[in-house]
Amino acid sequence: MAAEVRIIGLHGLPDIKPGADLVAVILEAAQGQGVTLTDDDVLVVTQKIVSKAEDRLVDLRMVTPSAFARQVAKAQEKDPRVLEVVLRETRRVVKMDQRTLIAETHHGFVCAHAGVDESNVAGEDTVALLPVDADASARRLREGIRVKTGVELAVIIADTFGRPWREGLVNVAIGVAGIEPLKDYRGLPDTEGRVLKVTTLAIADELASAAELVMGKLDKVPVAVIKGYAYTRGAGSATQLVRRPEKDLFR
Amino acid sequence: MAAEVRIIGLHGLPDIKPGADLVAVILEAAQGQGVTLTDDDVLVVTQKIVSKAEDRLVDLRMVTPSAFARQVAKAQEKDPRVLEVVLRETRRVVKMDQRTLIAETHHGFVCAHAGVDESNVAGEDTVALLPVDADASARRLREGIRVKTGVELAVIIADTFGRPWREGLVNVAIGVAGIEPLKDYRGLPDTEGRVLKVTTLAIADELASAAELVMGKLDKVPVAVIKGYAYTRGAGSATQLVRRPEKDLFR
Repeated sequence: MAAEVRIIGLHGLPDIKPGADLVAVILEAAQGQGVTLTDDDVLVVTQKIVSKAEDRLVDLRMVTPSAFARQVAKAQEKDPRVLEVVLRETRRVVKMDQRTLIAETHHGFVCAHAGVDESNVAGEDTVALLPVDADASARRLREGIRVKTGVELAVIIADTFGRPWREGLVNVAIGVAGIEPLKDYRGLPDTEGRVLKVTTLAIADELASAAELVMGKLDKVPVAVIKGYAYTRGAGSATQLVRRPEKDLFR
Repeated sequence: MAAEVRIIGLHGLPDIKPGADLVAVILEAAQGQGVTLTDDDVLVVTQKIVSKAEDRLVDLRMVTPSAFARQVAKAQEKDPRVLEVVLRETRRVVKMDQRTLIAETHHGFVCAHAGVDESNVAGEDTVALLPVDADASARRLREGIRVKTGVELAVIIADTFGRPWREGLVNVAIGVAGIEPLKDYRGLPDTEGRVLKVTTLAIADELASAAELVMGKLDKVPVAVIKGYAYTRGAGSATQLVRRPEKDLFR
């Protein structure tokens, strides 16, 4: 295990518009800060700028809420057009009450309001959706960086999700490329020689959470470079982080 | 937000026995590695060595399983004595099936098997319990370090917990001292000037997850020093990270 892990926030990125070349923007920011990317680095990118670059923005003025969306919005004191967008992004409503709607998205992620985001997007009448396939987004970023620099690093697309039982949101991985998101210790002996039973760590989520420490919510630090973590290379997919329904007591 | 956060694992700690002076052991390891502790640092300590030092070990040979413990153990193919200990640590069974028992502990934490740990503890017939009050454990460590060095840093006691919906365990905070575990962005304007609605980040959990990156499971790195994260000082308590039942759709 490495003695030291460093997390470097990339700042000074411009506002990301639909169609923006994220690879160019990220490489420029890294260069501007004197950060040299290597194969051993993990690049963590917030979902927000990926969704913006991929034009996953919805103009609410074009949205006609259904009767159900209007009803839920009234109960939750929210914009019925936003609820309509949330329902369109929802494969299954996991739970709902007067405050929130927990959705299973079409990707299989379980999160509040299907990941539909009203903050930090351009204009009052715009919301951002999750990328259609954040693994593919991560792969495109990884490939773009490889083509321009020859560097083959790991890429994680991250978003802040709530969770049951515990207060507060934490950053988790919704897309990965070039890294195995889970680290399996099962079958290995512990420090006392006893075999570990159920220890699979969600490394990609821990890397996403670590990256959040330099990102914050209000600052324009949408990208972090993690150096010194000996990640396991692999094709990897964030779908590995989605607990299979038959293994999930809470679905 | 800081441009760079560093996570340094402390290695070379001796095996921790009941009654061990953790403050001395940690300071010695830090000094041996040339790590200078400051008021701005966050010290993350794994629950395991805290539980050992506080003699939260149970000799299973002294445990007589109840009828219910025997029944659950049979269904789950586990040691009935371990199940008995799990049930004693349990305030409420949240869910159970043929594989696992999700417990609300006496602290209010929700986790598999009430945090009772069979790995990395001395001997086949020994299990480790969570600290009685990990906030108090964190405060004692913080105060001990202050007395010996004059440094007033933040302390987090961390353990790996599973969670619904997502695969794999992540490190979370079960005790804190000197740090506000939640960071509240509600009411602040986002980058577009829109007011953020529901954004409270579980900073202490993210710090615990970040620390896990240098700790691993098999290596003897039970302590990490996090430098460069501008944490919010405060009395703080890990109970702030326990979602109140009336706010939790899943309890």
